[in-house]
Amino acid sequence: MAAGKGTRMKSRKPKVLHRLAGRPLIEHVLETANGMDARRVIIVTGHGGDDVELACTLASVQARRPAPIFVRQEPQLGTGHAVQQAVPALGDSGITLILNGDVPLIQSGTLQALIDRCAGERVVLLSVDMPDPTGYGRIIRSGNAVWGIVEHKDATEEQKQINEVYTGFMAVPTSVLKRWLAKLTNKNAQGEYYLTDIIALAVKDGADVVAVKAVDPLQVDGVNSARQLAVLERTYQTRQAQQLMEQGVRLADPERFDLRGKIVCGTDVEIDINCIFEGTVWLGDGVTIGANCIISNARIEAGAVIEPYTHIAGERSGAQVGQNARVGPFARLRPGANLGPDVHVGNFVEIKNTTMAGGSKANHLAYLGDAIVGERVNYGAGSITANYDGANKHRTVIEADVHVGSNSVLVAPVRLGAGGTVGAGSVITKDTAPGVLSVARGKQVAVENWQRPSKN
Amino acid sequence: MAAGKGTRMKSRKPKVLHRLAGRPLIEHVLETANGMDARRVIIVTGHGGDDVELACTLASVQARRPAPIFVRQEPQLGTGHAVQQAVPALGDSGITLILNGDVPLIQSGTLQALIDRCAGERVVLLSVDMPDPTGYGRIIRSGNAVWGIVEHKDATEEQKQINEVYTGFMAVPTSVLKRWLAKLTNKNAQGEYYLTDIIALAVKDGADVVAVKAVDPLQVDGVNSARQLAVLERTYQTRQAQQLMEQGVRLADPERFDLRGKIVCGTDVEIDINCIFEGTVWLGDGVTIGANCIISNARIEAGAVIEPYTHIAGERSGAQVGQNARVGPFARLRPGANLGPDVHVGNFVEIKNTTMAGGSKANHLAYLGDAIVGERVNYGAGSITANYDGANKHRTVIEADVHVGSNSVLVAPVRLGAGGTVGAGSVITKDTAPGVLSVARGKQVAVENWQRPSKN
Amino acid sequence: MAAGKGTRMKSRKPKVLHRLAGRPLIEHVLETANGMDARRVIIVTGHGGDDVELACTLASVQARRPAPIFVRQEPQLGTGHAVQQAVPALGDSGITLILNGDVPLIQSGTLQALIDRCAGERVVLLSVDMPDPTGYGRIIRSGNAVWGIVEHKDATEEQKQINEVYTGFMAVPTSVLKRWLAKLTNKNAQGEYYLTDIIALAVKDGADVVAVKAVDPLQVDGVNSARQLAVLERTYQTRQAQQLMEQGVRLADPERFDLRGKIVCGTDVEIDINCIFEGTVWLGDGVTIGANCIISNARIEAGAVIEPYTHIAGERSGAQVGQNARVGPFARLRPGANLGPDVHVGNFVEIKNTTMAGGSKANHLAYLGDAIVGERVNYGAGSITANYDGANKHRTVIEADVHVGSNSVLVAPVRLGAGGTVGAGSVITKDTAPGVLSVARGKQVAVENWQRPSKN
Repeated sequence: MAAGKGTRMKSRKPKVLHRLAGRPLIEHVLETANGMDARRVIIVTGHGGDDVELACTLASVQARRPAPIFVRQEPQLGTGHAVQQAVPALGDSGITLILNGDVPLIQSGTLQALIDRCAGERVVLLSVDMPDPTGYGRIIRSGNAVWGIVEHKDATEEQKQINEVYTGFMAVPTSVLKRWLAKLTNKNAQGEYYLTDIIALAVKDGADVVAVKAVDPLQVDGVNSARQLAVLERTYQTRQAQQLMEQGVRLADPERFDLRGKIVCGTDVEIDINCIFEGTVWLGDGVTIGANCIISNARIEAGAVIEPYTHIAGERSGAQVGQNARVGPFARLRPGANLGPDVHVGNFVEIKNTTMAGGSKANHLAYLGDAIVGERVNYGAGSITANYDGANKHRTVIEADVHVGSNSVLVAPVRLGAGGTVGAGSVITKDTAPGVLSVARGKQVAVENWQRPSKN
Repeated sequence: MAAGKGTRMKSRKPKVLHRLAGRPLIEHVLETANGMDARRVIIVTGHGGDDVELACTLASVQARRPAPIFVRQEPQLGTGHAVQQAVPALGDSGITLILNGDVPLIQSGTLQALIDRCAGERVVLLSVDMPDPTGYGRIIRSGNAVWGIVEHKDATEEQKQINEVYTGFMAVPTSVLKRWLAKLTNKNAQGEYYLTDIIALAVKDGADVVAVKAVDPLQVDGVNSARQLAVLERTYQTRQAQQLMEQGVRLADPERFDLRGKIVCGTDVEIDINCIFEGTVWLGDGVTIGANCIISNARIEAGAVIEPYTHIAGERSGAQVGQNARVGPFARLRPGANLGPDVHVGNFVEIKNTTMAGGSKANHLAYLGDAIVGERVNYGAGSITANYDGANKHRTVIEADVHVGSNSVLVAPVRLGAGGTVGAGSVITKDTAPGVLSVARGKQVAVENWQRPSKN
Repeated sequence: MAAGKGTRMKSRKPKVLHRLAGRPLIEHVLETANGMDARRVIIVTGHGGDDVELACTLASVQARRPAPIFVRQEPQLGTGHAVQQAVPALGDSGITLILNGDVPLIQSGTLQALIDRCAGERVVLLSVDMPDPTGYGRIIRSGNAVWGIVEHKDATEEQKQINEVYTGFMAVPTSVLKRWLAKLTNKNAQGEYYLTDIIALAVKDGADVVAVKAVDPLQVDGVNSARQLAVLERTYQTRQAQQLMEQGVRLADPERFDLRGKIVCGTDVEIDINCIFEGTVWLGDGVTIGANCIISNARIEAGAVIEPYTHIAGERSGAQVGQNARVGPFARLRPGANLGPDVHVGNFVEIKNTTMAGGSKANHLAYLGDAIVGERVNYGAGSITANYDGANKHRTVIEADVHVGSNSVLVAPVRLGAGGTVGAGSVITKDTAPGVLSVARGKQVAVENWQRPSKN
């Protein structure tokens, strides 16, 4: 179910595309659904349907999963109406499991319990005990048998004392679900078709209706406002931090840690305050990450040290940092940055689509883009690869053991032969032979009678 | 009342000049007082009086309000003595509302309730229920009538059980206030004139004394120490974050958000962790602010993306970022930075007092100061406007479609004609004609027998 | 006691070398032990013993204390066995105080109370009341007399109700300690020699055993997992923040403040969010530290302003910032940076092993390494000291009142004479005379028929 507008989000985006831990809510649910080994996954879209379908398709491609089936609910006439749209796509037998696109943290174990209990025979509701159930539909049961769901506004005083509420998740044998869906009416105050009305129909048909209680309330928390989204985000982040610490990762402050994707850590990984990890990040043994780093889609090999304020964004092509390399502070690695072992990248240095072989250094205020750098190269402070001629990007090759003097410009395409030296302040436009010193600069002259400007 | 020293602050600054959410405590109170439509606002200063008066005057100028009347209390002989200093400035009739300069979050609605209840007839105290009232003056009442305020040290065991305490705020008919103030004595342990002694005088005169309870304890929280200041700051920041989320602003972490001034947000604004906003900031629809940004006095148009670690400080002249522009990471915009639509400002780039027209780019390690940049200009990595000759600042004009090569210097005053190109590493000291390639560099030579230095 | 492996840390590091507030756990305990004026301090090492002994030795050197005595426990056969290893190093008389290397926050006052109570006669245990004592050894006492310590698994239901548990700290007269240690056996489920078994031996010998309760549970908190380490770290940091606020330091957010070492603050110091202080930091009166700064081993004089995102790492040689100097944002001061009064170091500037005299400025994108800079020097944007010739580091001297133009390179060793000027974009390889203008660059030429590359 992913058709809702989410008015309280006060956003133009469909609700299920708001992000938790860096991913759209619906993507979390879709991943869990995909993990259930269902015959088919059907997503009912509506508000912002094109965007939702695109996001789900992209997520499926990235996860190398077949795309789900989309059915469109237009107009949106209630939750029962939403499921009615899916009827043509449902099989004739089996179990239909109904999930909510705005309840992102549901886990497959919880869902499997619904399916197991359903066993093709029962209607199984997922319920949860809430300390303050105001506003939620109460589960009316005697023993194991559920008799109905009573909306808060319809509840008697006695019913209002019930803490067990319906979560929006249920498992139903598909054949009877279809039958009951066909009987839904919209004769109520809202004029909507409610999915929960099938419970009364089921009871009337003498079907077995049961409720399974969620043990972890976080799994059934829905998102209806920016406020709820923030609460869920922080709860989820805290949980992720605790899990990493269980594995032995040292976090300087678990409340100042954000993981928006996946992180795989070796032993003795230390992460200082206020870091953000995005996409897929791999940290080898003994890696230390300084304060205030942002790292996405990167592989950091054992023993590497990432100094504070380092921004690594590998995006699709990824970024790599070799063993015992040292990056930062104030360094930026962009997609295609591939640093070998013992490489040093220092402050105010930007590396893009560039391979630096073992032991090379770019320590201060420099830019390396679209370059291949050999071993033990020293790339001087303030040096720049002019990789873009205003129309096309070109490659710079710096062979092993080259020393590039400060404030040089290497105008690509250009190749610096092994062991060569570039004099400080040179603009290198032609390839250089191995071993030679290349210089391109004016002669130093002294102007003796020059008058410095004075204040106007 | 703004005369106190605030000994427990352990500061040389007068207490009321300490800052909450970026503004002096007294400025918060003054703003609220100004909102009350009072005939006159009188500030009693004392400790650090010159500084306090200057701050209040500046705040009034900025708010386009008439300056308050200042009266000086020297020496400081108690709260009653403080109000006595204001007597010559008070009118003959009407209501006098007494506020505290170190209680910054009082709101006008609360104060209006005091005035309404006073109605020119009653003495109205603002009280609050405190879970632990130790140390505070208890309100002694029977029904609605207040009989007195008993200081903690003078309270009986029974009185100590009272949770309702006096907040320091009161509304009193001016004519009787003056009469009672004239009767105050300092015959007490401290040798001070207490304002609260007028309650006994009022009761003696048969005047009607009532207490109105503050519903929101935060409004009456005073600041006496760095610790209390920090608590109030965080409470206030949390409240501001909640209000923004109510409007639909997405905050990655409401506990890591600081607003020191005003922020106006369009729809679908997203703000990542650990950002600070100062002064007046305007964020258009769909703006995203990356982690660890600091933004003050800036206008960011719809669709602009501010990458992490971006520092925008418009100060008095303001900074602007155009539609769909992209700034950062590690960028700094200073006062007078004015970026047009689709402008890109990248890492380690500083922009000051410079207009960049639509589609221009300065992506890497560069400085633009006192410049006017046309449309679609590409300002190369490492390029610098030499805008300061050691005595005066000069302007650089870069016309549309110019490409400035890497590591160039533009020595101002200078104008680059439209569509021209500057070769990498050039120092441009003379205006260039439209369309031409300008180069100023040495010829590249190879020194074949050069020996690289060896380790000493 | 510092021999344990700390399996639950899931680390290759010995447990006592994990860091709390920037220092190994054992270093905290050693510092406290050193403060006790003991005749000798003995450390029992085992797992990772070489590393632990090295760390303790280094810490002693830095604290100018004699190194402790190390005894090695191999294999590790229990806490009693650990203390047995120390027997040869113990004196014949006096009191032995047993501390735990993984309980870092124990304070000398608490330990002194054990010693005082022991008085060379009694066995004194340090106990603590725990709300949930599950898993801990309960103190069995009648009145003041302790009868034993019962492990959780051996406790009766009634004993399990006891909240007072043993902390691992005790003071024992050395002579009797030796006697009882000699009688320990390992006839228990674990096959280990337990130190706590001496209590039974003491009671049997009719010795007086008492327990002193720790008033501050934090002091006896041990570290067994990354999770516990994080909890202790945050609790300790909060406590440090509160102490600084008590002194009048203004912290924008006490929950976003990390002190890993010592900080000495003058009056009216203000520290914005998310700052980290390491080693020894001294902040003079009125210093303000902007958000997201990291400052280690530095002395910042009165009135200096450290702008946000400033990284100062003085390490062993220290860094200094003079009175009313202004550093940052995005500045980096490295070891040996020594800024005089009123110096300005601006964005994307790196300073290493360089003295800048009063009033000098390096405001934009620049590198100064191994330099001596005189008064009132203006070091232009993009300028670099080429201090490293690929083999050795050399010194640059810039005398007073020199102006260095933008994007210049000063190739060290080189000296710029007082009052001289370097033209923008110059590479200075030879000393310059005082007062002259030095230029080293190509002449600006226009290429009129040049065709800009077009997109492939």
